[in-house]
Amino acid sequence: MSGANATRRSVVLKSRPTGEPGAEHFAIREDAVPSPGPGEVVTRTIFLSIDPYMRGRLREQQTYAVAIQPGDVMIGETVGEVIASACPGLSPGDVVAGPRGWQSHCLAPGASLVKIDRAARAPLSAYLGVLGMPGTTAYAGVTEVMKPKAGETVVVSAASGAVGSVAGQIAKRAGARVVGVAGGADKCRFVTEALGFDACIDHRSATMAADLAAACPNGVDAYFENVGGAVQAAVFDLLNRHARVAMCGMVSQYNDAVFPPGPNLGFVVGKAVLIQGFIVSDRPARFAEWRAMAAPWVADGSLVFREDVVEGLENAPAALGGILTGRNFGKLLVRVGHDPG
Amino acid sequence: MSGANATRRSVVLKSRPTGEPGAEHFAIREDAVPSPGPGEVVTRTIFLSIDPYMRGRLREQQTYAVAIQPGDVMIGETVGEVIASACPGLSPGDVVAGPRGWQSHCLAPGASLVKIDRAARAPLSAYLGVLGMPGTTAYAGVTEVMKPKAGETVVVSAASGAVGSVAGQIAKRAGARVVGVAGGADKCRFVTEALGFDACIDHRSATMAADLAAACPNGVDAYFENVGGAVQAAVFDLLNRHARVAMCGMVSQYNDAVFPPGPNLGFVVGKAVLIQGFIVSDRPARFAEWRAMAAPWVADGSLVFREDVVEGLENAPAALGGILTGRNFGKLLVRVGHDPG
Repeated sequence: MSGANATRRSVVLKSRPTGEPGAEHFAIREDAVPSPGPGEVVTRTIFLSIDPYMRGRLREQQTYAVAIQPGDVMIGETVGEVIASACPGLSPGDVVAGPRGWQSHCLAPGASLVKIDRAARAPLSAYLGVLGMPGTTAYAGVTEVMKPKAGETVVVSAASGAVGSVAGQIAKRAGARVVGVAGGADKCRFVTEALGFDACIDHRSATMAADLAAACPNGVDAYFENVGGAVQAAVFDLLNRHARVAMCGMVSQYNDAVFPPGPNLGFVVGKAVLIQGFIVSDRPARFAEWRAMAAPWVADGSLVFREDVVEGLENAPAALGGILTGRNFGKLLVRVGHDPG
Repeated sequence: MSGANATRRSVVLKSRPTGEPGAEHFAIREDAVPSPGPGEVVTRTIFLSIDPYMRGRLREQQTYAVAIQPGDVMIGETVGEVIASACPGLSPGDVVAGPRGWQSHCLAPGASLVKIDRAARAPLSAYLGVLGMPGTTAYAGVTEVMKPKAGETVVVSAASGAVGSVAGQIAKRAGARVVGVAGGADKCRFVTEALGFDACIDHRSATMAADLAAACPNGVDAYFENVGGAVQAAVFDLLNRHARVAMCGMVSQYNDAVFPPGPNLGFVVGKAVLIQGFIVSDRPARFAEWRAMAAPWVADGSLVFREDVVEGLENAPAALGGILTGRNFGKLLVRVGHDPG
């Protein structure tokens, strides 16, 4: 149990990375654990989520968010235990999930947090992955943009990752033939054997585009885009008329200072293709909707997920670097404190 | 009045153009005017429509249609007078619009044709432009994809053309600020003064991108894309969050053997942009809906359109070449025969 005299550790941005971010771009700052003001709670962090979108917040130029400035605490979703509360409805010992930061202890408005129902029998970490922002992102992209029909062919890139693994499993539940793209034989095997995708293509293969074409003999009706680059080009070449592309991310270029040219968009006209960018934070209502739908699937094991847990807050910067190049295998988390059980 | 002994002239493809199409790629074939089989009618062509999509049909590779083969009659929409009918409901003297070909006389299923109500007081040519396929295309793109709201900024490329001129006027009726892009001072003046757009940028100007940015101080909420290329890049740089792009055409590249690279699509994710290709022939119900809505606006002069009429079927190939490089000014038509009045 921490109190006003305990120490809070925070990871703050030291300098903006120009390529892959790492420990050298961040510093650990220590100060006292704060006390909550009216409506606020203080939590002790149990898990911190590491997600590709975080790389974008390190850029000076932003499209929809506020840039992290040097000296700022890095942002991120956490699961934590309430240790002090000035918010009705939240008490010490409650476990909550929500947007906070890379900190051992977080001060946050209670209204921004979701209290975790431990009776749902899902592990706490799931609320940052399959039941959290990544899972809800997958749910929104599949149901609002891809809208797969039974028998259609769906491709999902970064298929073993936190978002892609869920997107493909939802598309399978809709009756689609689902082809994943992942990096390396181990991930591809996981995608077909554990997640139940119909096929998975290794994007590191020199024959990736031909392999993908062979796995999609009827073309591609919907694509869940997480990576951009050569995979995007290969999938776009296979799109059928009236294909739908859910543009969730383009992680292959997040470390690039200047983005490479993209596809000529003539095919969008000729094939009447839909390309839809979406940001899950625009859809706050979907979070609870998805959590309620998917928690039983997590509990009964029918929605499969895999986690990659890094130990210790100080290793969060290197973990972020790794997720951008695919060194993680499954939903990437940092364990900051113990699960109170 | 023609009959079974009259001569039919047809423009047939001689060889596939590799760049701009012209007379050298086509031949005139003469034969006898046919007689209609059951359900068919024969029409004497009055106007032939020339549209950018026709260039695509000359390519060997097709996305949604059937390629014109050397020796085939070139396809196109016409307005014509029925001279022989074996179709109940259509009689000699009726004037009809519909898909036929580059011919002095066309044999067509009566069911594929729309009988023109001369009491609507719209000129016959309008049924190939503002009330025909181009007008319906504009209507579909604005109402189904762009969905402009009052006060939003809408950009329309090829703004003086058959589709763009209608798209912008519909967006104005919805209360949007509408900025056109057109080629040359005369077209830009027409777009603002006659069509009533709020501004029009000359895409031939060396400062086009800066001019467009200055005309869109609040960014761009919706874009009606007809041209591609540098104009597309300039508009995409100005798109706001949740912008909608109606992908109707990319005429600037229709003569290219190899298409140039396109935009990096990172902005689609970050700004949650919608890019939607659409083909009006997928929406047969919209034709009559638009015609009924817009015919009164044509009759009362509140929906402005401009036509560019080329005389003589033999000049259709050069006219097609011209529309791809913007030599026309307004809806491009070929006058093949007289209006029976």
